[in-house]
Amino acid sequence: MRRSDCPISNVLDHVGDRWSLLVIRDIALYGKRSFTELLDSAEHVATNVLTDRLRRLEQTGLLTRTRDSGDARKNIYRLTQRGRDLLPILIEMILWSARHDPQTNAPPELVRRAQTDRNALIADLQARIDAVDGR
Amino acid sequence: MRRSDCPISNVLDHVGDRWSLLVIRDIALYGKRSFTELLDSAEHVATNVLTDRLRRLEQTGLLTRTRDSGDARKNIYRLTQRGRDLLPILIEMILWSARHDPQTNAPPELVRRAQTDRNALIADLQARIDAVDGR
Repeated sequence: MRRSDCPISNVLDHVGDRWSLLVIRDIALYGKRSFTELLDSAEHVATNVLTDRLRRLEQTGLLTRTRDSGDARKNIYRLTQRGRDLLPILIEMILWSARHDPQTNAPPELVRRAQTDRNALIADLQARIDAVDGR
Repeated sequence: MRRSDCPISNVLDHVGDRWSLLVIRDIALYGKRSFTELLDSAEHVATNVLTDRLRRLEQTGLLTRTRDSGDARKNIYRLTQRGRDLLPILIEMILWSARHDPQTNAPPELVRRAQTDRNALIADLQARIDAVDGR
Protein backbone atom coordinates (compact mmCIF):
# COMPACT_ATOMS: atom_id res chain seq x y z
CA MET A 1 0.00 0.00 0.00
CA ARG A 2 1.34 3.39 -1.02
CA ARG A 3 1.39 5.79 1.92
CA SER A 4 2.56 8.96 0.19
CA ASP A 5 4.46 10.23 -2.85
CA CYS A 6 7.68 10.50 -0.83
CA PRO A 7 10.52 8.60 -2.56
CA ILE A 8 11.87 7.35 0.80
CA SER A 9 8.46 6.17 1.95
CA ASN A 10 8.10 4.40 -1.40
CA VAL A 11 11.24 2.31 -0.83
CA LEU A 12 10.04 1.45 2.67
CA ASP A 13 6.67 0.38 1.22
CA HIS A 14 8.68 -2.20 -0.76
CA VAL A 15 11.40 -3.31 1.66
CA GLY A 16 10.61 -1.58 4.99
CA ASP A 17 10.76 -4.60 7.26
CA ARG A 18 13.41 -6.64 9.04
CA TRP A 19 13.73 -9.32 6.35
CA SER A 20 13.22 -8.16 2.77
CA LEU A 21 16.61 -6.47 2.40
CA LEU A 22 18.31 -9.56 3.88
CA VAL A 23 16.77 -11.63 1.08
CA ILE A 24 18.03 -9.04 -1.43
CA ARG A 25 21.44 -9.17 0.27
CA ASP A 26 21.65 -12.96 0.01
CA ILE A 27 20.82 -12.92 -3.70
CA ALA A 28 22.94 -9.86 -4.51
CA LEU A 29 26.03 -10.45 -2.39
CA TYR A 30 26.09 -14.16 -1.51
CA GLY A 31 24.96 -15.61 -4.85
CA LYS A 32 22.02 -17.51 -3.37
CA ARG A 33 19.21 -18.37 -5.78
CA SER A 34 17.11 -21.19 -4.26
CA PHE A 35 14.68 -21.28 -1.35
CA THR A 36 16.91 -23.78 0.49
CA GLU A 37 19.94 -21.52 0.13
CA LEU A 38 17.96 -18.43 1.22
CA LEU A 39 16.62 -20.28 4.26
CA ASP A 40 20.18 -20.96 5.40
CA SER A 41 21.25 -17.59 6.82
CA ALA A 42 22.88 -16.41 10.04
CA GLU A 43 19.64 -14.61 10.95
CA HIS A 44 17.55 -17.83 10.89
CA VAL A 45 14.57 -16.58 8.91
CA ALA A 46 11.45 -18.69 9.48
CA THR A 47 10.14 -20.69 6.51
CA ASN A 48 6.78 -18.92 6.42
CA VAL A 49 8.39 -15.48 6.68
CA LEU A 50 10.75 -16.28 3.81
CA THR A 51 7.87 -17.59 1.69
CA ASP A 52 5.88 -14.42 2.35
CA ARG A 53 8.77 -12.05 1.60
CA LEU A 54 9.72 -13.84 -1.63
CA ARG A 55 6.12 -13.62 -2.81
CA ARG A 56 5.94 -9.91 -2.01
CA LEU A 57 9.30 -9.14 -3.61
CA GLU A 58 8.12 -10.94 -6.74
CA GLN A 59 4.78 -9.07 -6.72
CA THR A 60 6.52 -5.70 -6.45
CA GLY A 61 8.90 -6.54 -9.27
CA LEU A 62 12.15 -6.74 -7.30
CA LEU A 63 12.80 -10.38 -8.20
CA THR A 64 11.61 -13.05 -10.58
CA ARG A 65 10.81 -16.68 -9.85
CA THR A 66 11.42 -19.34 -12.48
CA ARG A 67 11.59 -23.13 -12.46
CA ASP A 68 15.02 -24.67 -12.41
CA SER A 69 15.62 -26.19 -15.86
CA GLY A 70 17.24 -29.23 -14.21
CA ASP A 71 14.66 -29.76 -11.45
CA ALA A 72 11.09 -28.61 -12.07
CA ARG A 73 10.24 -28.74 -8.34
CA LYS A 74 12.87 -26.13 -7.59
CA ASN A 75 12.37 -22.36 -7.92
CA ILE A 76 15.17 -20.00 -8.88
CA TYR A 77 14.96 -16.43 -7.59
CA ARG A 78 16.76 -13.70 -9.52
CA LEU A 79 16.92 -9.95 -8.99
CA THR A 80 15.33 -7.70 -11.62
CA GLN A 81 16.99 -4.40 -12.54
CA ARG A 82 14.77 -2.76 -9.90
CA GLY A 83 16.09 -5.24 -7.36
CA ARG A 84 19.74 -4.94 -8.40
CA ASP A 85 19.48 -1.18 -8.08
CA LEU A 86 18.96 -1.60 -4.32
CA LEU A 87 22.69 -2.43 -4.10
CA PRO A 88 23.77 1.17 -3.32
CA ILE A 89 21.38 1.20 -0.35
CA LEU A 90 22.98 -2.02 0.95
CA ILE A 91 26.46 -0.51 0.45
CA GLU A 92 25.53 2.54 2.53
CA MET A 93 24.21 0.27 5.27
CA ILE A 94 27.52 -1.59 5.31
CA LEU A 95 29.42 1.72 5.56
CA TRP A 96 27.20 2.92 8.40
CA SER A 97 27.83 -0.23 10.43
CA ALA A 98 31.55 -0.20 9.64
CA ARG A 99 31.67 3.28 11.13
CA HIS A 100 29.27 2.96 14.05
CA ASP A 101 29.23 -0.73 14.95
CA PRO A 102 32.73 -1.97 14.12
CA GLN A 103 32.07 -5.37 15.72
CA THR A 104 29.93 -6.20 12.68
CA ASN A 105 31.77 -8.19 10.05
CA ALA A 106 31.86 -5.70 7.17
CA PRO A 107 34.62 -6.94 4.81
CA PRO A 108 37.43 -4.32 5.11
CA GLU A 109 38.27 -4.48 1.39
CA LEU A 110 34.63 -3.86 0.43
CA VAL A 111 34.44 -0.96 2.90
CA ARG A 112 37.64 0.54 1.48
CA ARG A 113 36.37 0.31 -2.10
CA ALA A 114 32.96 1.70 -1.13
CA GLN A 115 34.73 4.74 0.32
CA THR A 116 37.23 5.34 -2.48
CA ASP A 117 35.92 3.63 -5.60
CA ARG A 118 32.18 3.41 -5.11
CA ASN A 119 30.85 3.35 -8.67
CA ALA A 120 33.35 0.72 -9.82
CA LEU A 121 32.54 -1.43 -6.79
CA ILE A 122 28.81 -1.32 -7.58
CA ALA A 123 29.51 -2.14 -11.26
CA ASP A 124 31.67 -5.10 -10.19
CA LEU A 125 28.99 -6.40 -7.81
CA GLN A 126 26.33 -6.09 -10.52
CA ALA A 127 28.58 -7.94 -12.97
CA ARG A 128 28.97 -10.72 -10.40
CA ILE A 129 25.19 -11.00 -10.08
CA ASP A 130 24.92 -11.27 -13.88
CA ALA A 131 27.61 -13.94 -13.94
CA VAL A 132 25.74 -16.10 -11.41
CA ASP A 133 22.55 -15.59 -13.43
CA GLY A 134 24.35 -16.54 -16.66
CA ARG A 135 23.62 -13.17 -18.27
CA MET B 1 17.92 -7.79 19.40
CA ARG B 2 21.01 -8.53 17.37
CA ARG B 3 20.39 -11.27 14.84
CA SER B 4 23.87 -11.64 13.38
CA ASP B 5 27.17 -9.81 12.86
CA CYS B 6 26.15 -8.78 9.35
CA PRO B 7 26.47 -4.99 8.92
CA ILE B 8 23.28 -4.85 6.82
CA SER B 9 21.29 -6.87 9.34
CA ASN B 10 22.62 -4.53 12.03
CA VAL B 11 21.13 -1.46 10.35
CA LEU B 12 17.82 -3.29 9.92
CA ASP B 13 17.89 -4.19 13.62
CA HIS B 14 17.87 -0.42 14.24
CA VAL B 15 15.60 0.95 11.52
CA GLY B 16 14.15 -2.10 9.71
CA ASP B 17 10.49 -1.18 9.85
CA ARG B 18 8.07 0.99 7.90
CA TRP B 19 8.35 4.03 10.19
CA SER B 20 11.77 4.60 11.78
CA LEU B 21 13.48 5.95 8.67
CA LEU B 22 10.53 8.28 8.06
CA VAL B 23 11.11 9.80 11.51
CA ILE B 24 14.82 10.16 10.63
CA ARG B 25 13.78 11.72 7.28
CA ASP B 26 11.51 14.28 8.96
CA ILE B 27 14.24 15.36 11.37
CA ALA B 28 17.06 15.26 8.80
CA LEU B 29 15.38 16.69 5.72
CA TYR B 30 12.31 18.59 6.91
CA GLY B 31 13.74 20.25 10.02
CA LYS B 32 11.11 18.81 12.37
CA ARG B 33 12.08 18.57 16.04
CA SER B 34 8.90 18.23 18.13
CA PHE B 35 6.40 15.39 18.57
CA THR B 36 3.62 17.55 17.13
CA GLU B 37 5.65 18.30 14.02
CA LEU B 38 6.66 14.65 13.59
CA LEU B 39 3.05 13.54 13.94
CA ASP B 40 2.09 15.78 11.03
CA SER B 41 3.35 13.80 8.02
CA ALA B 42 1.84 12.71 4.70
CA GLU B 43 2.04 9.08 5.88
CA HIS B 44 -0.23 9.69 8.91
CA VAL B 45 1.80 7.87 11.56
CA ALA B 46 -0.31 6.85 14.56
CA THR B 47 0.47 8.54 17.89
CA ASN B 48 1.37 5.31 19.66
CA VAL B 49 3.59 4.15 16.78
CA LEU B 50 5.45 7.47 16.76
CA THR B 51 5.88 7.33 20.55
CA ASP B 52 7.27 3.80 20.30
CA ARG B 53 9.66 4.57 17.43
CA LEU B 54 11.02 7.74 19.09
CA ARG B 55 11.68 5.78 22.27
CA ARG B 56 13.50 3.04 20.36
CA LEU B 57 15.52 5.49 18.27
CA GLU B 58 16.57 7.22 21.49
CA GLN B 59 17.47 3.89 23.14
CA THR B 60 19.64 2.84 20.20
CA GLY B 61 21.45 6.18 20.17
CA LEU B 62 20.14 7.54 16.87
CA LEU B 63 18.51 10.57 18.43
CA THR B 64 18.43 12.49 21.70
CA ARG B 65 15.43 13.86 23.56
CA THR B 66 15.73 17.06 25.57
CA ARG B 67 13.24 19.45 27.14
CA ASP B 68 12.54 22.63 25.21
CA SER B 69 14.19 25.49 27.13
CA GLY B 70 11.12 27.68 26.46
CA ASP B 71 8.44 25.08 27.28
CA ALA B 72 9.33 22.32 29.76
CA ARG B 73 6.37 20.16 28.66
CA LYS B 74 7.75 19.95 25.13
CA ASN B 75 10.42 17.48 24.00
CA ILE B 76 12.95 18.31 21.31
CA TYR B 77 14.31 15.42 19.24
CA ARG B 78 17.70 15.79 17.59
CA LEU B 79 19.80 13.37 15.56
CA THR B 80 23.06 12.14 17.01
CA GLN B 81 26.08 11.63 14.74
CA ARG B 82 24.95 7.99 14.39
CA GLY B 83 21.55 9.23 13.27
CA ARG B 84 22.89 11.90 10.90
CA ASP B 85 25.08 9.30 9.25
CA LEU B 86 21.95 7.52 8.01
CA LEU B 87 21.59 10.38 5.47
CA PRO B 88 23.48 8.54 2.68
CA ILE B 89 21.03 5.64 3.01
CA LEU B 90 18.11 8.05 2.61
CA ILE B 91 19.81 9.64 -0.42
CA GLU B 92 20.15 6.24 -2.10
CA MET B 93 16.48 5.53 -1.43
CA ILE B 94 15.55 8.82 -3.10
CA LEU B 95 17.71 7.93 -6.13
CA TRP B 96 16.15 4.47 -6.39
CA SER B 97 12.63 5.89 -6.44
CA ALA B 98 13.60 8.68 -8.85
CA ARG B 99 14.77 5.97 -11.25
CA HIS B 100 12.13 3.30 -10.73
CA ASP B 101 9.04 5.11 -9.47
CA PRO B 102 9.20 8.52 -11.13
CA GLN B 103 5.72 9.44 -9.91
CA THR B 104 7.23 9.91 -6.45
CA ASN B 105 8.08 13.52 -5.66
CA ALA B 106 11.89 13.34 -5.43
CA PRO B 107 13.12 16.94 -5.79
CA PRO B 108 14.88 17.06 -9.22
CA GLU B 109 17.66 19.36 -7.97
CA LEU B 110 18.42 17.04 -5.06
CA VAL B 111 18.46 14.03 -7.41
CA ARG B 112 20.80 15.84 -9.80
CA ARG B 113 23.21 16.77 -7.00
CA ALA B 114 23.07 13.24 -5.53
CA GLN B 115 24.15 11.91 -8.93
CA THR B 116 26.87 14.42 -9.70
CA ASP B 117 27.97 16.02 -6.44
CA ARG B 118 27.11 13.48 -3.77
CA ASN B 119 29.60 14.24 -1.01
CA ALA B 120 28.99 17.99 -1.17
CA LEU B 121 25.22 17.41 -1.06
CA ILE B 122 25.53 15.28 2.07
CA ALA B 123 27.81 17.87 3.71
CA ASP B 124 25.27 20.61 2.90
CA LEU B 125 22.39 18.58 4.33
CA GLN B 126 24.36 17.87 7.51
CA ALA B 127 25.21 21.57 7.84
CA ARG B 128 21.49 22.37 7.54
CA ILE B 129 20.72 19.91 10.34
CA ASP B 130 23.36 21.62 12.50
CA ALA B 131 21.91 25.03 11.71
CA VAL B 132 18.41 23.98 12.86
CA ASP B 133 19.96 22.50 16.00
CA GLY B 134 21.93 25.70 16.64
CA ARG B 135 25.28 23.89 16.47
